[in-house]
Amino acid sequence: MEQFPDNLKEAIEWLASFGAVPEGGVTRTLYSKAWQDAQQALKEWMESVGLQTSYDTIGNLFGRLAADDPFAPTILVGSHVDTVKSGGKYDGAYGILAAIFAIEKLSQKYGKPAVNLEAVSLCEEEGSRFPIACWGSGMMTKIYSMQDIQSLQDSAGIRFGEAMKGAGFEPDHPYPIRRDIQTFIELHIEQGPTLENYQKSIGIVQAIVGQKRFHVTVTGESNHAGTTLMKWRKDPIHGVSTMITKLFEFTKEYDEDLVATVGEIHAKPNVSNVIPGEIIFTVDARHPSESVLHAFCECFSREFIEIAKDKGLEISIQKWHEVKPVQMNGMLNRLVQKICTANELAFHKMNSGAGHDAQFFAKVYPTTLLFVPSRAGISHSPLEFTEETDLENGLNVLVDLLYQLAY
Amino acid sequence: MEQFPDNLKEAIEWLASFGAVPEGGVTRTLYSKAWQDAQQALKEWMESVGLQTSYDTIGNLFGRLAADDPFAPTILVGSHVDTVKSGGKYDGAYGILAAIFAIEKLSQKYGKPAVNLEAVSLCEEEGSRFPIACWGSGMMTKIYSMQDIQSLQDSAGIRFGEAMKGAGFEPDHPYPIRRDIQTFIELHIEQGPTLENYQKSIGIVQAIVGQKRFHVTVTGESNHAGTTLMKWRKDPIHGVSTMITKLFEFTKEYDEDLVATVGEIHAKPNVSNVIPGEIIFTVDARHPSESVLHAFCECFSREFIEIAKDKGLEISIQKWHEVKPVQMNGMLNRLVQKICTANELAFHKMNSGAGHDAQFFAKVYPTTLLFVPSRAGISHSPLEFTEETDLENGLNVLVDLLYQLAY
Repeated sequence: MEQFPDNLKEAIEWLASFGAVPEGGVTRTLYSKAWQDAQQALKEWMESVGLQTSYDTIGNLFGRLAADDPFAPTILVGSHVDTVKSGGKYDGAYGILAAIFAIEKLSQKYGKPAVNLEAVSLCEEEGSRFPIACWGSGMMTKIYSMQDIQSLQDSAGIRFGEAMKGAGFEPDHPYPIRRDIQTFIELHIEQGPTLENYQKSIGIVQAIVGQKRFHVTVTGESNHAGTTLMKWRKDPIHGVSTMITKLFEFTKEYDEDLVATVGEIHAKPNVSNVIPGEIIFTVDARHPSESVLHAFCECFSREFIEIAKDKGLEISIQKWHEVKPVQMNGMLNRLVQKICTANELAFHKMNSGAGHDAQFFAKVYPTTLLFVPSRAGISHSPLEFTEETDLENGLNVLVDLLYQLAY
Repeated sequence: MEQFPDNLKEAIEWLASFGAVPEGGVTRTLYSKAWQDAQQALKEWMESVGLQTSYDTIGNLFGRLAADDPFAPTILVGSHVDTVKSGGKYDGAYGILAAIFAIEKLSQKYGKPAVNLEAVSLCEEEGSRFPIACWGSGMMTKIYSMQDIQSLQDSAGIRFGEAMKGAGFEPDHPYPIRRDIQTFIELHIEQGPTLENYQKSIGIVQAIVGQKRFHVTVTGESNHAGTTLMKWRKDPIHGVSTMITKLFEFTKEYDEDLVATVGEIHAKPNVSNVIPGEIIFTVDARHPSESVLHAFCECFSREFIEIAKDKGLEISIQKWHEVKPVQMNGMLNRLVQKICTANELAFHKMNSGAGHDAQFFAKVYPTTLLFVPSRAGISHSPLEFTEETDLENGLNVLVDLLYQLAY
């Protein structure tokens, strides 16, 4: 009989062995061999602790501890099994493993629950193989449909449908509609430094922030760096440096949940002795309030246009990505807060600046997202790490929460 | 008998046929077939107008109208025959063609000069095939030696020496020392918009500017764009935008000969939803006075270091290229000024922001560099253009100058 892990620390290493990379991290992209092996191993482990397992048609894996009542609703708890390329061992994995341990403990101690408790290993969240993210939760919430993956290919040219078939799933089958889900609960590593910096054990997520991403193109006149006097230049980098400086100044006028990032910048022709003709840069802005985010983006856009005009430059600001903010369930969060207090665990009410499966579920079901600290905030890296105590604290809160909701 | 051009406009088109590219410009890189054909055609043309021609061992072509006195010194007049890839028809070419026409006219009208007049078609100035510029003038002035090209290869992996041999020249022969040169005169298109903007016909270059080029590397901490609060970021682009803004502010405190360019910028990892960990950008600063240029570079460097310190960023400022400013000969320039006045040609005393062969000769011989306007300042492009009147104005000044110096 196969040996399954006894505790979270062991379980993290055990699951990380599926898709382990030499640098110490994990590559487990959707429907890959490592992914299939991981789901299969999780299925066997779930069965070994007495859960009824099933896959849906796209590869989400469920392990149910059923209530007696055949019409009982279901509390779904888990996270995603896929990773980014050379990702960490904790991202996604922790939420699935903690869900299985929590349901196992409750089952052993209290027997059958009044509602179904179901651990879920969602097939995909990261968007790192195909250009679509939160595929598992997006299908469960009907925000996506099979249409959305029709034309998608991975970097090797493999079509999404082929990859799915190769893993034993059926892109042509209708997706089952689940009407029994009552609540979704996700436990996840923070992937940021807030809990560590504030020395808190549990992050209770109030909202997952909204995002707007822009391409800003500033056009001037490319010219010889030696023969063009400063007064005759239309140098886009002159405008761009002023814009970026202003952008960061503006963030200070907002609360600390407002973040703005210029991650990408490209100059043309990008030659040291030629005045650039065009600069393209990105702005990624995030805030939990849609109206605040909107106001911030309006504010910097107006300022950018003003700066361009003032310097005789052309500007185009294109929004190419937008995600609305999503609120987590207040009642569930108050319950978590009480559990933390009762267990003397320092908690922090915070927002999630990163997207999660909970973002999709929260649009349809009462949902909560709980964080445990990430060392130095590092994630999507083999250096991702969370202390065993923190892992166990999260699990204990989850056990208490599920107990209160299901028994 | 072959037909050679009768006037400058025809001559520009004639020479541009050697290495003509479909877009309308010229590609005539050092020692290429087009380069060999162009030098050979120029040699035949020189001979057809009565000049004694010769090549030196690296491919500089000379066409001499000799004085009677075998010990007479030589006035050298010309420019470079090579072009950048898809360059214009005027850059370099104009100076050679005008030199031949000028000496021909003087010979026809006044016969033998009191000093030798020698048109020169310098083999290389642009540095566009091998990573060395002003090869022709650099060797003539002994600033370069054969050592400098030992290890150079072009982008196809052809060694400099091989390319030279292929064109019929001898990298292993000693380079001839010329002790007869008295003066170097170069006529060139401006390659900038100053004469056009100021509506002047002749630019009398006072100095070729000094240049300093730097790589500035600013290092912070790469992090997730969503999960890292602004107050915890060490975002290099925050520092860089402030630095570049300050750099341009500082230029305003100097005279208009000071130019500064940020032509290249690279962010790492350059992904829209990741705070960059490092930004590298270039600064190209130029001024005709070495001490002013030094002061400016000291000033922005100190400010950059201050900004980095203030924002908790690491900075490294590496100077990777430096050219000292070079003064043109004052006596020659006063002569040109008088000629312009006598001919009612509007002139402008200016500096050259770009490098030229005159820069090398000026270190060794009394040298002057004269400009004619470039439409819209465009150069190194098939769009490079100078009006026929402007071409002829330059030629007339050259004829008068050579007359005064040689008869």
